[in-house]
Amino acid sequence: MTNGPAPSLKTERTTLRRRPNKGVYDRDSIYAILDEAFVCHVGFVQEGQPFVIPTGYGRDGDTLYLHGSSASRMMRALAEEIPICVTVTLVDALVLARSVFNHSVNHRSVVVLGKAALVEGEEKMHGLTVLTNHIVPGRWDDVRPPTDLEMKATSLLKMRIDEASAKIRSGPPADDDEDYALPYWGGIVPVRTVTEPAVDDGRLLAGVELPSYLVDYSRIRPIEG
Amino acid sequence: MTNGPAPSLKTERTTLRRRPNKGVYDRDSIYAILDEAFVCHVGFVQEGQPFVIPTGYGRDGDTLYLHGSSASRMMRALAEEIPICVTVTLVDALVLARSVFNHSVNHRSVVVLGKAALVEGEEKMHGLTVLTNHIVPGRWDDVRPPTDLEMKATSLLKMRIDEASAKIRSGPPADDDEDYALPYWGGIVPVRTVTEPAVDDGRLLAGVELPSYLVDYSRIRPIEG
Repeated sequence: MTNGPAPSLKTERTTLRRRPNKGVYDRDSIYAILDEAFVCHVGFVQEGQPFVIPTGYGRDGDTLYLHGSSASRMMRALAEEIPICVTVTLVDALVLARSVFNHSVNHRSVVVLGKAALVEGEEKMHGLTVLTNHIVPGRWDDVRPPTDLEMKATSLLKMRIDEASAKIRSGPPADDDEDYALPYWGGIVPVRTVTEPAVDDGRLLAGVELPSYLVDYSRIRPIEG
Repeated sequence: MTNGPAPSLKTERTTLRRRPNKGVYDRDSIYAILDEAFVCHVGFVQEGQPFVIPTGYGRDGDTLYLHGSSASRMMRALAEEIPICVTVTLVDALVLARSVFNHSVNHRSVVVLGKAALVEGEEKMHGLTVLTNHIVPGRWDDVRPPTDLEMKATSLLKMRIDEASAKIRSGPPADDDEDYALPYWGGIVPVRTVTEPAVDDGRLLAGVELPSYLVDYSRIRPIEG
């Protein structure tokens, strides 16, 4: 990969089969989805049993950093650099067609395949910065940084984004032509993940105000519905 | 299981290791989470590679029905009754502590382990009804029902809920005692998945109005933040 990353992340394993027209393989589209969300689902295998664990993540260029401290089972498994799958899903709308068969969910999802490696040394602090600022931009410079002991108690994984696909479904329902003559309601119910105003914990020191990066905090990006 | 389901879904494989106090294993708590969400992440293994695919689901008693038509790769694999993991995650808040180490995400998640089986015959229509009404209660009776051909083109899986755990994190940040003396902001940013008013597709027949089950549609349940 000395000549830079491949322009497409499509491989035999990430090619959508059933609805190939919904498959998206360019980095820009995939990264836009990865950057809007902040919780992924990590799949790994132990003794033949798949496990799927939600965790926070951040992206730095073509690298995903995954937070691991909340799942020691996962960390033990992933430290061995076994194959994993990282999936990120944004739900945009319920799609109600006139036929039950054509019901759907507008969504944007990304599947990344690869192997995760434990991050150690200097890169670990960098990765935690990326992860923290991915979830709350600007937060890293406005907290007590981790101690050596805390760094040891934190696990961070990284994964190269080399093999991935996105799936995007948007727009109104697609009913069969003859079904538009039926007296059923058809359309969408938009779904949004929104944040409400920040609430302090009642233990702020005098003079501590709401940080500017929380005043307008939002993850919402323009979408089509 | 002729004497009814076990009261606890805890097994060696579903026992939380790192933070056992956050583990919840009773059906009521687990089902409340499963009933609020409608998209799950299904993990399965093919040739040693885990895949994690988002899909819609519904719950009927101790059975999960999983919609499969959007992932033929998944359906082909799961038709062989291989081990799967179904994970459902609700994100409730970003948790900003004074130390970066104690940052967290308030969430409620469920992991169900087991094997999925293809649903055929009479139960298939029942399962699709459960799944449809799980996402939009009342919708099944207000659409054109599936034809035989559409039923064949739809795949439905079922999975017994016999082995599962929930993980719940709520409340304010938990900073170290001495960190409350630091001049950093601490608190939460509530996160909500909300629905906006339904939008018809502009092709309704004259006289077709918004169905009553969409007027007050919401998935929000009271939570603690």
